[in-house]
Amino acid sequence: MKAVVVLSGGQDSATCLALAVKKYGAREVAAITFEYGQRHSIETKFARRLAKRFGVAAHKIVKFGFYKDITTNALFDPSMKIKGSSTSTQSPPNTVVEGRNAFFLMAAAVWAKSLGATVLYTGVSQADYSGYPDCREVFVKAQEKAIRLALDFPIRIETPFMKMTKADEWALAAKLGIFDIIANETVTCYNGIPGKGCGKCPACRLRNRGLKEYEGTLRR
Amino acid sequence: MKAVVVLSGGQDSATCLALAVKKYGAREVAAITFEYGQRHSIETKFARRLAKRFGVAAHKIVKFGFYKDITTNALFDPSMKIKGSSTSTQSPPNTVVEGRNAFFLMAAAVWAKSLGATVLYTGVSQADYSGYPDCREVFVKAQEKAIRLALDFPIRIETPFMKMTKADEWALAAKLGIFDIIANETVTCYNGIPGKGCGKCPACRLRNRGLKEYEGTLRR
Repeated sequence: MKAVVVLSGGQDSATCLALAVKKYGAREVAAITFEYGQRHSIETKFARRLAKRFGVAAHKIVKFGFYKDITTNALFDPSMKIKGSSTSTQSPPNTVVEGRNAFFLMAAAVWAKSLGATVLYTGVSQADYSGYPDCREVFVKAQEKAIRLALDFPIRIETPFMKMTKADEWALAAKLGIFDIIANETVTCYNGIPGKGCGKCPACRLRNRGLKEYEGTLRR
Repeated sequence: MKAVVVLSGGQDSATCLALAVKKYGAREVAAITFEYGQRHSIETKFARRLAKRFGVAAHKIVKFGFYKDITTNALFDPSMKIKGSSTSTQSPPNTVVEGRNAFFLMAAAVWAKSLGATVLYTGVSQADYSGYPDCREVFVKAQEKAIRLALDFPIRIETPFMKMTKADEWALAAKLGIFDIIANETVTCYNGIPGKGCGKCPACRLRNRGLKEYEGTLRR
């Protein structure tokens, strides 16, 4: 196995999967999906379908049952109203799941090592910064170093969208010939509504604004 | 809350707990214990007792049910014979749980942040190096940096035994007036036998050799 993709079932990770398959071939790519108590756990269903559609060699679903015991946030607790602008540069939104990408990347790396894979893909981006500190490049670089030392294994973390906006990602999906898959077969919405989603939560607003921007470039 | 101690119920973490309580007072110290599928899960029982004995403000038991799904090793799989010298500098022993300290420290940090605590204690040591890459100082420093960036929170990781041998730790326990607690109320043995343990597994050999060395210094 060459690469492991952190696959949530959303736009970013689905596009990552396509990139990894394009580069290494589906037989050399595995996907890993986490259930961590998020209210939009429909993600797993979409992740399964995407893994099947791209024909990857293995897909693992990992349950992080512990997460709710160490922290809380609006994605875990349905009684909390989701707050925070998708472009906030002030305080982080209440949808921050503390340390989520650190756990995802570490677990993906442990599994990757057992498969002999040295490359991880994650769809994080700091271009459309939403106030999530573990989406920043400086974090991913530090996490990569910690993983290499923890496992004594030469893991490399690929973040193809780190400097891309959502509009850039839509353009890339079109270029890769997977625009329809991304538009219809992924779920980004915090309320678990596939495709265009609820249109109101920060994740939907970010996704749909990017799509609009991309469509604008086509009309020019 | 000031500090969170990663408490396994063994010699090292119990001594860490004593140090943290001495420095900050029991009301400012919390302990966190992980059940990760280890065969010696009697550890939890001892961790509970230690937390009670030192009167810490909070003690959390976290179940890492996911671990067995992403890797295996002789601590998870009772059908594997425990191998590897306790002083091996060659290949790591088959008791390595890939990335264990990375997960422990990350989860402890997330919980610490929710409590407002900025200090973590972990009893890892590279002096009596057993081939565990995530016990090295270079790893802990990298992990500390990754945690700070992931959480945007100024966590500091204290590793009081990083450069101590087991003999040094026994001497410290005596100095702290907790020698009997460490000798009788902790469990280090991979086979889950408290105190002196089975005497045969690498963890016991390391512990007991340290004790013998320490006792030797008393006779001089």
